[in-house]
Amino acid sequence: MAPENLTLLTDLYQLTMAQAYFREQQMGEATFSLFIRSYPPNRGYFVSAGLTDVIEYLEDFAFDAKALDYLAAQKLFSDDFLHYLADLRFTGQVWAIPEGRIFFQDEPVLELTAPIIQAQIAETFIINQIHLQSLIASKAARCVHAAGGRAVVDFALRRTHGTDAGMKVARTSYLTGFHGTSNVLAGLRYGIPIVGTMAHSFVSSFENEIDAFRAYVASFTNNAILLIDTYDTLIGARNAVQVAKEMAARGQKLIGVRIDSGDLAAQALAVRKIFDEAALAEVKIIGSGGLDEFDLATMSESNTPYDSYGVGTKMGTSADAPWTDISYKLVEYRARPMLKLSPGKISCPGKKQVFRHRDGQGYLQRDLIGLRDEEMGGERLLKEVMRNGKIMGPHPSLVECRAIFTDEFASLPQNVKAIRSPRRYEVNLTAKLKNLRDETVEKIGRS
Amino acid sequence: MAPENLTLLTDLYQLTMAQAYFREQQMGEATFSLFIRSYPPNRGYFVSAGLTDVIEYLEDFAFDAKALDYLAAQKLFSDDFLHYLADLRFTGQVWAIPEGRIFFQDEPVLELTAPIIQAQIAETFIINQIHLQSLIASKAARCVHAAGGRAVVDFALRRTHGTDAGMKVARTSYLTGFHGTSNVLAGLRYGIPIVGTMAHSFVSSFENEIDAFRAYVASFTNNAILLIDTYDTLIGARNAVQVAKEMAARGQKLIGVRIDSGDLAAQALAVRKIFDEAALAEVKIIGSGGLDEFDLATMSESNTPYDSYGVGTKMGTSADAPWTDISYKLVEYRARPMLKLSPGKISCPGKKQVFRHRDGQGYLQRDLIGLRDEEMGGERLLKEVMRNGKIMGPHPSLVECRAIFTDEFASLPQNVKAIRSPRRYEVNLTAKLKNLRDETVEKIGRS
Repeated sequence: MAPENLTLLTDLYQLTMAQAYFREQQMGEATFSLFIRSYPPNRGYFVSAGLTDVIEYLEDFAFDAKALDYLAAQKLFSDDFLHYLADLRFTGQVWAIPEGRIFFQDEPVLELTAPIIQAQIAETFIINQIHLQSLIASKAARCVHAAGGRAVVDFALRRTHGTDAGMKVARTSYLTGFHGTSNVLAGLRYGIPIVGTMAHSFVSSFENEIDAFRAYVASFTNNAILLIDTYDTLIGARNAVQVAKEMAARGQKLIGVRIDSGDLAAQALAVRKIFDEAALAEVKIIGSGGLDEFDLATMSESNTPYDSYGVGTKMGTSADAPWTDISYKLVEYRARPMLKLSPGKISCPGKKQVFRHRDGQGYLQRDLIGLRDEEMGGERLLKEVMRNGKIMGPHPSLVECRAIFTDEFASLPQNVKAIRSPRRYEVNLTAKLKNLRDETVEKIGRS
Repeated sequence: MAPENLTLLTDLYQLTMAQAYFREQQMGEATFSLFIRSYPPNRGYFVSAGLTDVIEYLEDFAFDAKALDYLAAQKLFSDDFLHYLADLRFTGQVWAIPEGRIFFQDEPVLELTAPIIQAQIAETFIINQIHLQSLIASKAARCVHAAGGRAVVDFALRRTHGTDAGMKVARTSYLTGFHGTSNVLAGLRYGIPIVGTMAHSFVSSFENEIDAFRAYVASFTNNAILLIDTYDTLIGARNAVQVAKEMAARGQKLIGVRIDSGDLAAQALAVRKIFDEAALAEVKIIGSGGLDEFDLATMSESNTPYDSYGVGTKMGTSADAPWTDISYKLVEYRARPMLKLSPGKISCPGKKQVFRHRDGQGYLQRDLIGLRDEEMGGERLLKEVMRNGKIMGPHPSLVECRAIFTDEFASLPQNVKAIRSPRRYEVNLTAKLKNLRDETVEKIGRS
């Protein structure tokens, strides 16, 4: 499964601008800063995700012959520019907030410094991946939090926006603490535990529900989860009790049952009672079917007896907030600070750093956005991950990023991670950055 | 750019169910029906899209060695089942509503008949692609309609959910009448016209806005569109007038300008006036920046002088409705009609057909969902596209599907395609299908 060459997966204007830069020989070093301008409703934080794909893309950055032939056929580009593109590689530097770390509105999650043509052509892919993966990681983190310690697994693949999203949803939900995914290819590519039960079609393809259950446990003697809501959930639960007893007589064990429709909270109570009365307290109940973090929070608050959840569509599409206002802005060009003045979109100039301060108990207290060479105390969040076009040092694995997230999330104040109406975490600009911004605004005003 | 093998891109339960079927030798022929159960807000129709990817996937369906090794390592599957998987190919039949045709709630957009194991393993990919592509095609069709004849182009790539979505958004927006895409790789893969202007970063990397404009038109002497809102849109427009005059003196022509922020309607009026007063009536104005079909409809109603629009994020994520309640249900097994009884989710049994009836002027009037072998008059929408695992006849190209859409959409009544609160198009079940459903419900109730 070789990844395809994605260098051509860019917006045409990146290439037309590149030709104009090339023709003018205006090829100085530029720094672009990637940040999210505002929180979607009910969001109080974001989770950094997607960096691994970005740095691998940058290291592989090169137009292949097919791409160059296609560009030549457009009759837009000069021969000398196409020759230039043929040899173009990424030679720049990337600073970023590592995957799994929490970040906030306006904080640069990634800053890239490179000759401006490289920085522009790479923009589209960089935004595409960090946008999707941070969006889903943030949504998935909310689900894990709302589940209050119960396991959550990813069932989203069928309704994610395409195949790449299906893979990245599995990856980023695992990053934020999901226990596994139904996506088998994601299991192979990322080493994520894969999980699965059965579908309604399986049950209905047999004459009777209990025949379906028996056929399934014949193949999965110690890891079966039976779907009990195809016809009537309570009858399904009693059929599962019968099968669990038959298994016990053979020295086997039924792991659990899944409920996928109807009033999930009410059914969990009734089904738990059926199993407990049958002395099957160890049989777990898994809930699924249109769940999101709001549903999970409600069930956690009322101690609904689910042991774990499968969440799909609403997590995998970040249904209540399917996009964020993420932006990749030129902040420095040829060592000159830059910003955008468009109404409502004023950005911060210069190469930056985020300084994270904690309180006496280790909880996140406030962040300062400053210039990269400032000394403001606290932890410096952006790390140098690429230099001269090469990935620096060993890049953390997905499991390591997952541990980073778990640690960081534990130190995020409860009211900032609230599912509804979270408190706004304090983020300020340093005096130096504010001065630079004011000076730059003034300079542009004068020019 | 060889497509990767996606056979393993499935939910684990498809494979665990498959092993149970295999062990029981319950491998009869099953028919599954794919349909959308309800309209998202403000939606009155859907556009069929994604079928090409589905049939190509089915024709290539095969587990490769890497996939089989991975499955073996899970310790879930028996050796004889893994051997069976190694030889498994898709041998079934697919009926579907062709891409570009309009379809409605509850209508089967695709029906697949195959040995049940094949039909289950393929489910995940089939839903994934038809869901995404029909979702985006429906959203994009609304944008084209709302633009009232003005050209619309796809700028979504940076915020689509990953790379596959970026490609499919370009494809399906073109299918529904978009004029082009900014996505260069989609241009290469699908033969879609590619379009592009310039970014704010280009303008701000020069000392002065007019220097940036001059540099750009030096490279693009007859196809330049200048972005005029980096600092002040009206000053930007006057700079563009100056450059347009310089170009005219050299025998060149400025194509247009783009406005990407602020009050888009007000600015279009002011900018149009500046160009008209400069005797540059032929310079076009392109609007972009957070647009969706609701904005386009408002600007069309007030005749705001935009000549074309770039639409991005909200179209490319179907932001107001990022998913639909699409479902792939077992409707027949071993020639026995099947349905699902879960509360609120009763489906229709049997192999089906949709019969489309038109009024005297050729407008779509009503559809009937019936059994596939019924004779109900009207046009039969589902066509056989695969038989014995092979794609039948020449499959229409994207350009042909686009023409099919344009024709069909022209015959959809205005109030059904309204942007806000569309009329519900009439779809009924035939008496035969109703009877079969009632009989099947009764049979299951008795069993």
